[in-house]
Amino acid sequence: MNYRVVLNILGKVLLAEALLMLLPTAAALVYGESALPFLWTILPLLLIGGGMNHVKPRSMDLFAREGFVVVGLSWLLMSAFGALPFVLAGDIPHYIDALFETVSGFTTTGASILTDVEAMSRGCMFWRLFTHWVGGMGVLVFIAAILPISGEHYIHVMRAEVPGPTVSKLVPRARKTARILYLIYLGLTLSEALFLLVGGMSFYEAILHAFATAGTGGFSTRGLSIGAFDSVYIETVIATFMLLFGCNFNLFYLILLGQGLAVLKSEELRVYLSIIALSVLVIALNIMGSVGGFLEGLRYAYFQVTTIISTTGFSTCDFDRWPELSRWILVLLMFVGGCAGSTAGGLKVTRIIILFKSYLCELKQFILPTRVKRIWFEGKAVDDQTVRSVLIFFETYMAVIGLSVLLLTLDGRDLTTNLTASIACISNIGPGLNLVGPMGSYAFFSVPSKLVLSLEMLLGRLEIFPVLFLFAPRVWRRR
Amino acid sequence: MNYRVVLNILGKVLLAEALLMLLPTAAALVYGESALPFLWTILPLLLIGGGMNHVKPRSMDLFAREGFVVVGLSWLLMSAFGALPFVLAGDIPHYIDALFETVSGFTTTGASILTDVEAMSRGCMFWRLFTHWVGGMGVLVFIAAILPISGEHYIHVMRAEVPGPTVSKLVPRARKTARILYLIYLGLTLSEALFLLVGGMSFYEAILHAFATAGTGGFSTRGLSIGAFDSVYIETVIATFMLLFGCNFNLFYLILLGQGLAVLKSEELRVYLSIIALSVLVIALNIMGSVGGFLEGLRYAYFQVTTIISTTGFSTCDFDRWPELSRWILVLLMFVGGCAGSTAGGLKVTRIIILFKSYLCELKQFILPTRVKRIWFEGKAVDDQTVRSVLIFFETYMAVIGLSVLLLTLDGRDLTTNLTASIACISNIGPGLNLVGPMGSYAFFSVPSKLVLSLEMLLGRLEIFPVLFLFAPRVWRRR
Repeated sequence: MNYRVVLNILGKVLLAEALLMLLPTAAALVYGESALPFLWTILPLLLIGGGMNHVKPRSMDLFAREGFVVVGLSWLLMSAFGALPFVLAGDIPHYIDALFETVSGFTTTGASILTDVEAMSRGCMFWRLFTHWVGGMGVLVFIAAILPISGEHYIHVMRAEVPGPTVSKLVPRARKTARILYLIYLGLTLSEALFLLVGGMSFYEAILHAFATAGTGGFSTRGLSIGAFDSVYIETVIATFMLLFGCNFNLFYLILLGQGLAVLKSEELRVYLSIIALSVLVIALNIMGSVGGFLEGLRYAYFQVTTIISTTGFSTCDFDRWPELSRWILVLLMFVGGCAGSTAGGLKVTRIIILFKSYLCELKQFILPTRVKRIWFEGKAVDDQTVRSVLIFFETYMAVIGLSVLLLTLDGRDLTTNLTASIACISNIGPGLNLVGPMGSYAFFSVPSKLVLSLEMLLGRLEIFPVLFLFAPRVWRRR
Repeated sequence: MNYRVVLNILGKVLLAEALLMLLPTAAALVYGESALPFLWTILPLLLIGGGMNHVKPRSMDLFAREGFVVVGLSWLLMSAFGALPFVLAGDIPHYIDALFETVSGFTTTGASILTDVEAMSRGCMFWRLFTHWVGGMGVLVFIAAILPISGEHYIHVMRAEVPGPTVSKLVPRARKTARILYLIYLGLTLSEALFLLVGGMSFYEAILHAFATAGTGGFSTRGLSIGAFDSVYIETVIATFMLLFGCNFNLFYLILLGQGLAVLKSEELRVYLSIIALSVLVIALNIMGSVGGFLEGLRYAYFQVTTIISTTGFSTCDFDRWPELSRWILVLLMFVGGCAGSTAGGLKVTRIIILFKSYLCELKQFILPTRVKRIWFEGKAVDDQTVRSVLIFFETYMAVIGLSVLLLTLDGRDLTTNLTASIACISNIGPGLNLVGPMGSYAFFSVPSKLVLSLEMLLGRLEIFPVLFLFAPRVWRRR
């Protein structure tokens, strides 16, 4: 383990967080609130971050191992400091609650312990929704985009932070890749904010909801979430942007390069859109009786399906009261998640496709045992190691859910609440069913349960291994 | 596809079923009931089976493909005919209900649509519990044990019927292996019946409950299941035999060969016993407050843990009312199941071990990417193909559960009922939670749901692929 390089990058992460916190500080000042909760957080960030940044590594050698450790520790540290303003401002009095809310923010989960959302100060609310935006694309990708970090090794860090079984560099240099990703991200966010402004949303809420959509987070300034605006236009804009932010960002880059046709050939995109279309149709038919017709059904179904598959977690209605079929479709979509290389959580459509194809492959293996079968995806043969990693990822995902529920049951809540809370946290969605349904909150969970759920959110956002890594003693040995 | 050999073996299966049905016929006569429901089933079995048996195959060539098809079709046919006596005797008026009960019997699930168990005629009750015994070890293994089927190819058929990721022939010849298995099976069954007789159970009930335990089935002659006997002795005997029937039968063979020490070295056995011990302890502590002390807690926990992990499904109390922690432990145990090569269902302990080790292996791969890792199990390296098959089996298992629940939701029952019914059927357990809890029944499900659950039971018992195989057009092509 190259400790110096790890410390150095962690220092940069803390400095970056201080920098990012200037935005909510400004917001607090604009709205005439005290900026002290932010300033008192920025100060230690600068001191500690600056100190760590002064550790000069002898070499910038970074391998997968260091990449994982850096990412795992960065997210823990960012969350630990990011929770301070909520406590200092008095908006969330208990630190563990604030930590839960911050982890939920950075991991773009959107599970909230707030019971009176509208009571929060504007500065803190800005920070709360802005964490989604920061966490969506990732803070280490952000650092790569703004700082001249030398050495191609940094791609190992980005790999550990960007979701999906494989990460393709858009361009040969990691820094340029990071810049392109952030520019696309920023462009889409601003477009959405503009659309929302046109729909009559205030500037403050338009920007914040654009942040929360971009990161596929799901926090809202309103207790009723997007349902509070009661506008078909706003719903449609947000649903469509949720769908877009669930797409692989490589596709947007291809569009920028003028290769729009290549986008249409993307297998993952086709499957993603087909799942959405099918789910919307079935749910619309299933709920049309209770919402007043097929068109209304489509409206609610389109929003709720895109919010769940993109793992955002906004809501426009209480889907917990929907018929069992629709509820279960949403639970299944919670597992699917968005596309690889998007800001969404879940297993990712790429993995679902590889899982399905490996099943077909196994079936064929039985029928024609003599012929060697390969799995093809996006026109290329998938190597055995990737297939195996996907299968093990799935297994670990399910095991984490099963074991987390075991700990949650100690709180004594019902099975549906515990199970969907666990799925909603690891898949970075936010709302589940029953007590944690779209009209509920995570406030009632005990402190140990909140820590378990926070850990699940981190495991989900960082795709399990960078977090589990931190608990493996062998990782910490020097080479 | 060698159709002639498939037809020939299917004919033998039907003839074997006719032979096995002589036992309930005798029981009906002994208890002064009409034997006609059985005779009217035996007649077509003999005619059709005899006819098919006359198809002489040009060669006895049997490959994995034919093995799977034979097993899949055998179980469907056996169930279709096996349901007739219930309808003809009027004990289960509707054929689909009778089919559900028969599939549940042969697959050793023990999920019942009966609401008044005690009302069934004694002949049908004998057949109902006897199906567990037949299905436990498998009818094709039975045929191999009694008929001189030439050709070592028959091992392909046995492989498809005996649970577990790999099947070891105890001795070089398939026929002798089958005989040894059935002799151990019979010996253990008779021992249990003897123990139950000593405990004061009637001859009829002792034999039948021994059948149901041996197959890890779970049907009982009583509506309250084993709880009706209210005897610590009987509970302990049955719990211990459930534990034994959940062990790999190879171990009993080793004991017969005087290699008792080798048994203790079995990794699977150790993990199996550790899971049981840990679960019993935690549940006993969790329920001791409500059942009157730790010892009473141990009593109920030991029975319910062994009944679930061995996928039998007897009950001595309503564990659906237990605290959430205990309920969830039982749900997790539903996935685990017994050991490979036992009569139990579920994923099997062997697979759980391989799943866990492949996860560890993946973690190590990240830490030391340059070294090639192998998975060791029972002192041998597991080949990549087996690991992959286990991973894909797990994935398919979860997918079947998820998609089955989708169909069950159309009945409008709650999530816990649908989910645990689905798990309890594919894992061949029987009772789940809520409406399908130990005091409930499967009677309320609609006809389509009953068919879905029946299919799940078959998928679980035959370990998925032999059943899914039947739906793949490519399987049916001639070579």
